[in-house]
Amino acid sequence: MGSPRLVHRQSFTAEDTYGILGANLPALELMALYTAAAMHDYDHPGRTNAFLVTTNAPQAVLYNDRSVLENHHAAAAWSLFLSKPEYNFLVQLDRAEFKRFRFLVIEAILATDLKRHFEILAEFNAKANEPDAPGLDWNSETDRMLALEMCIKLADINGPCKALDIHTQWTSRIAEEFYEQGDEESALGLPVSPYMDRSNPQLSKLQESFINHLVAPLCNAYGEAGLMPGVWQEPGDEDEPETDLKLQMSNEDEEEEDPATSESDTATQTSGRTRKIFCLQTQHLQ
Amino acid sequence: MGSPRLVHRQSFTAEDTYGILGANLPALELMALYTAAAMHDYDHPGRTNAFLVTTNAPQAVLYNDRSVLENHHAAAAWSLFLSKPEYNFLVQLDRAEFKRFRFLVIEAILATDLKRHFEILAEFNAKANEPDAPGLDWNSETDRMLALEMCIKLADINGPCKALDIHTQWTSRIAEEFYEQGDEESALGLPVSPYMDRSNPQLSKLQESFINHLVAPLCNAYGEAGLMPGVWQEPGDEDEPETDLKLQMSNEDEEEEDPATSESDTATQTSGRTRKIFCLQTQHLQ
Repeated sequence: MGSPRLVHRQSFTAEDTYGILGANLPALELMALYTAAAMHDYDHPGRTNAFLVTTNAPQAVLYNDRSVLENHHAAAAWSLFLSKPEYNFLVQLDRAEFKRFRFLVIEAILATDLKRHFEILAEFNAKANEPDAPGLDWNSETDRMLALEMCIKLADINGPCKALDIHTQWTSRIAEEFYEQGDEESALGLPVSPYMDRSNPQLSKLQESFINHLVAPLCNAYGEAGLMPGVWQEPGDEDEPETDLKLQMSNEDEEEEDPATSESDTATQTSGRTRKIFCLQTQHLQ
Repeated sequence: MGSPRLVHRQSFTAEDTYGILGANLPALELMALYTAAAMHDYDHPGRTNAFLVTTNAPQAVLYNDRSVLENHHAAAAWSLFLSKPEYNFLVQLDRAEFKRFRFLVIEAILATDLKRHFEILAEFNAKANEPDAPGLDWNSETDRMLALEMCIKLADINGPCKALDIHTQWTSRIAEEFYEQGDEESALGLPVSPYMDRSNPQLSKLQESFINHLVAPLCNAYGEAGLMPGVWQEPGDEDEPETDLKLQMSNEDEEEEDPATSESDTATQTSGRTRKIFCLQTQHLQ
């Protein structure tokens, strides 16, 4: 295998269904993204960064109060990987590829620290979605990294985009984890963190805040940039009752494409900026 | 003790000798700077970050290849501090003060990673030294932090500013440390890093590069901003033979001062931008 190589495909505008980001990433970066997703919460102690820092937990001291959990997930997972030769699923990579792969995985895991949420989102919007944004350049490593970071962030917190029964399950689990931290804070004589007091559950307020401030802006930014998987809508579909649930896609990449390839073979594709995509994940977030 | 408090003194322009930065920092920050200086190379293994990363050393895996040594120095020193109640020299600090103190110490230690050298230097010059620079605002925590980072960076690599025999001693020591790493690289079948091959010593080249690319620009930036300790020169001194060894100081802070206090009591002080300071540390770096 040579050095990392861009896989040039038709780009997502010619697709009519899932796999939008993956189609625009070289194989090495796509594999790094999956690996980061698998590693990104490894050995999670069920406490927040703020709690570990406040209590001078050994992990917080070890990581100098900086992205404590994320540093631990990455380091512990890589340490496991390196602990036995038979865990090495990367033997095919040469030294430079391994180095880049490891770098990408770590960057992606550290991007899941919500402390960096608004910074990453702002950077992405400035690149992809603002009125004078240049648009994502898939030939730029920096731009691909940004899209990759957005992707793992969304994968990390997309509970509210899942089917309601799954969403509810995960919500119950995080609530219980929060209450356990609240119990410990209480036992330590510390103020109980917001939403972590089991004697005063405020689950709907927590969810409202989480969805409106974090999940929805992230989903919408990712969708606006044309990265959300979904199904293109036929122009005629616009009059159907569920139209207002559909995600409007401003399809800016198309302008920069070679006209010879952009009007391609996908039956569902229509031209111009008025195309819409029906996205299962975001239909109820509008 | 209350919350951190600025100690307003006459500012360095009224001083004629040492203590310039310290006079403009609140006590908590000054103590943090000294603590960081004491901690900043604690438990150094005598190998470079690049070596630890390349060899997948446990410390590099632990810190995800990021500021490996600096993270270790800070974490290991703080871990020592926390290991026994009798090591706690910070009992007088309240919770908020301790938090800020710890933050400052960690920031200062992590600033000694030379990977961030040019970034920190550029930020400092944009703030203090460039033609349209606003100048350091001692009421701004951000500005004081930047000056503090510059100070510990300079303390870290100021070997070439010391008296020649001390400079020579430290140079021999770092050279020997480098050769030991070169020996280990060689034994591991890795390419020997520049200046680390004891069979091909290039000490003068190493020093020339180190001084011209790192130490001198840092010293000069710190000096230009008026932070280098020294002795003000009388105008008449300019004709003396050693004039070309003296550091010219553009003394821009003076303009912003209250005229009532700026023309103060120091006998050696003269007005305007042509004042010079004789600085023992930088006299041979011009």
